[in-house]
Amino acid sequence: MHGGPELRHHFEERLRAVGASRYHDKHPFHRAMHEGVLTREQIRGWVANRYYYQKNIPVKDAAILSHLPDREKRRRWITRIIDQDGSAEHEGGIESWLGLARAVGLSEAQVLAEVEVHPGTRFAVDAYVTLARTQPWVVAVASSLTELFAPDLMAHRIEVLATKYPWIDEHGLAYFRRRLTLAPRDAAYALSWVLEEATTLDLQDACVRALEFKCDVLWAVLDATMAAYGAGPTRQGRIG
Amino acid sequence: MHGGPELRHHFEERLRAVGASRYHDKHPFHRAMHEGVLTREQIRGWVANRYYYQKNIPVKDAAILSHLPDREKRRRWITRIIDQDGSAEHEGGIESWLGLARAVGLSEAQVLAEVEVHPGTRFAVDAYVTLARTQPWVVAVASSLTELFAPDLMAHRIEVLATKYPWIDEHGLAYFRRRLTLAPRDAAYALSWVLEEATTLDLQDACVRALEFKCDVLWAVLDATMAAYGAGPTRQGRIG
Repeated sequence: MHGGPELRHHFEERLRAVGASRYHDKHPFHRAMHEGVLTREQIRGWVANRYYYQKNIPVKDAAILSHLPDREKRRRWITRIIDQDGSAEHEGGIESWLGLARAVGLSEAQVLAEVEVHPGTRFAVDAYVTLARTQPWVVAVASSLTELFAPDLMAHRIEVLATKYPWIDEHGLAYFRRRLTLAPRDAAYALSWVLEEATTLDLQDACVRALEFKCDVLWAVLDATMAAYGAGPTRQGRIG
Repeated sequence: MHGGPELRHHFEERLRAVGASRYHDKHPFHRAMHEGVLTREQIRGWVANRYYYQKNIPVKDAAILSHLPDREKRRRWITRIIDQDGSAEHEGGIESWLGLARAVGLSEAQVLAEVEVHPGTRFAVDAYVTLARTQPWVVAVASSLTELFAPDLMAHRIEVLATKYPWIDEHGLAYFRRRLTLAPRDAAYALSWVLEEATTLDLQDACVRALEFKCDVLWAVLDATMAAYGAGPTRQGRIG
């Protein structure tokens, strides 16, 4: 019943509405970043905390891979892991993120040692990996659909970082440029799998909740970052 | 302490001894296969049951992948999944196994539907996947070290199948030819990881047990196969 074209369309609208209401572009730290008011220390804190998220992407994707039901789906999904981990020939997303870390003046060793990763970041990202390990694959795939909302943000972010934070070496922005093409490709097949597979209202509800949960993960990383470093010269993000 | 060269050497000997004592080449069904006495029905039953093992290899490897601690290790390990699932350009191990299924006269649809997969096969293989999902990565990697014992067996098996079962289309043996090169490569780095990482006696014990467990999985698949189809014209494998 819920697989009918109308209910499928309604399901897709529910998923897209999650981005409109709670994607992390609306977080005060993120808004401050795009206004160009973040200090170097705040940008560095964000990059160092977000590294923990980047590092766990292939872990999360391998957990999902191990639940996918057929090799056609695995052949698609495995490219996410290769994109992020890289190969002998191609730099992966994690290396690109370390390039950003160097470009904002962080030492790679310090980033890898995770000394600036705050507990709130760790708890949120670990919860995301746990979801991928324990939930049905369609629910876990639905949680990845924040990629539907990412490309617009990435395009804007590249411009903002290049113009409002000219002290960041532009080569460091390679990560975001990669995502401009990878995110739409990945979001397209992930969305089609979710729409095809989640044909009961219960499963559709679980998918919507998983996508909300993922938005909460990204939001919590920014909460932890803002609590530690503030969000602008007056540290207005630091409440209490 | 246990990481010292002598104890490391002793650990490697313990691992290799597992193969000598309980690798499945010593199973009566396997011995009958290599004596050339299996009927077509028995060969078909073996191929159909073993398909369930083949199918779960990438699932098991993705579970291990999701526990590996760094991207260098993941870049190595991920090739196992690509080798088995294949890609748009290259046939994978599962497809090669389906080629063997056709070569012995099975219908691919029947193999895929798993109608001939017996519960004993399913329980054993599922237990292997569960080990990969739940155990520390070094223990799960140790369980894969049956590959240390495989190449000799593969070389012999190709010869046996080609000469003693001439009714099998020789193209169907591509799977075993692949394994001749892939298994030693995969076993070599897996062994080096295990020797490097398992530096306490407790962890070494757990690794040895995991390898014994894996031998038991392969053995149980042959038990289930022999119980269902016998092992030779007199069905001497069927006891009671």
